[in-house]
Amino acid sequence: MQLTKHTDFAFRILIYLASTDEKLTRIQQLADGFDISKSHLMKIVNKLVHHGWVASVRGKNGGIRLGCAPGDVRLNDVVVLMEKTLDPVNCEEPLCALTSACKLKGVLLKAQDQYLKHLEEFTLEDLVDRKMIDVVRLIT
Amino acid sequence: MQLTKHTDFAFRILIYLASTDEKLTRIQQLADGFDISKSHLMKIVNKLVHHGWVASVRGKNGGIRLGCAPGDVRLNDVVVLMEKTLDPVNCEEPLCALTSACKLKGVLLKAQDQYLKHLEEFTLEDLVDRKMIDVVRLIT
Repeated sequence: MQLTKHTDFAFRILIYLASTDEKLTRIQQLADGFDISKSHLMKIVNKLVHHGWVASVRGKNGGIRLGCAPGDVRLNDVVVLMEKTLDPVNCEEPLCALTSACKLKGVLLKAQDQYLKHLEEFTLEDLVDRKMIDVVRLIT
Repeated sequence: MQLTKHTDFAFRILIYLASTDEKLTRIQQLADGFDISKSHLMKIVNKLVHHGWVASVRGKNGGIRLGCAPGDVRLNDVVVLMEKTLDPVNCEEPLCALTSACKLKGVLLKAQDQYLKHLEEFTLEDLVDRKMIDVVRLIT
């Protein structure tokens, strides 16, 4: 039940952008700082830009920055946007012979609701403090 | 945050054994009924036997059966036993440059606690009813 790399990296990018002093960050900076391939990062950043959490400025001196206030990014919404699926189990592959009578998925979905409900209490703002700002300064 | 196949298949096996009328079930029956390879099933069954939730009877007419009362198998314990890791994110691969100041993992761990706390309210017994018993009868 570990979060996917896709979600994990989205969190890393968002925390970084919420903590950096720089007005704009280049994708290459993030790729170097996080040791993640530029193409992988681009896919994640595009999704975050599309969602409005990240703003992108084109051109030679372009880059990306947070597209909203850190307090507007709820942690549950990041998980919901980035996870490939919110199905708690994959009953289809291989198709489970118990599916028609199974109550497990319902119980797991309610458990997942509790997980997301806890995350709803926090925003990106709660993850940024002086210590994080200092750490981010050291990366770039 | 989907459960791994390992956990998913453990649930399938446990629900099956808690619902079947047969005294002993052969691994081959489970492999056929669930369309899962026998070797994959063996690994999972061995773990469940080791934990005492499944009992194994050797010999020509041998097989497996539930090793305890269905009410003794809490659903959170199945997840904790079977998941490869309970780390909500993998900060080590690639090593995240933010780790020393990061508060995300702590928040995610608390969310996971809520998930497991919900599952703690249910046992295998809650997943077995007349409908499931009928479905399991049809498989074998």
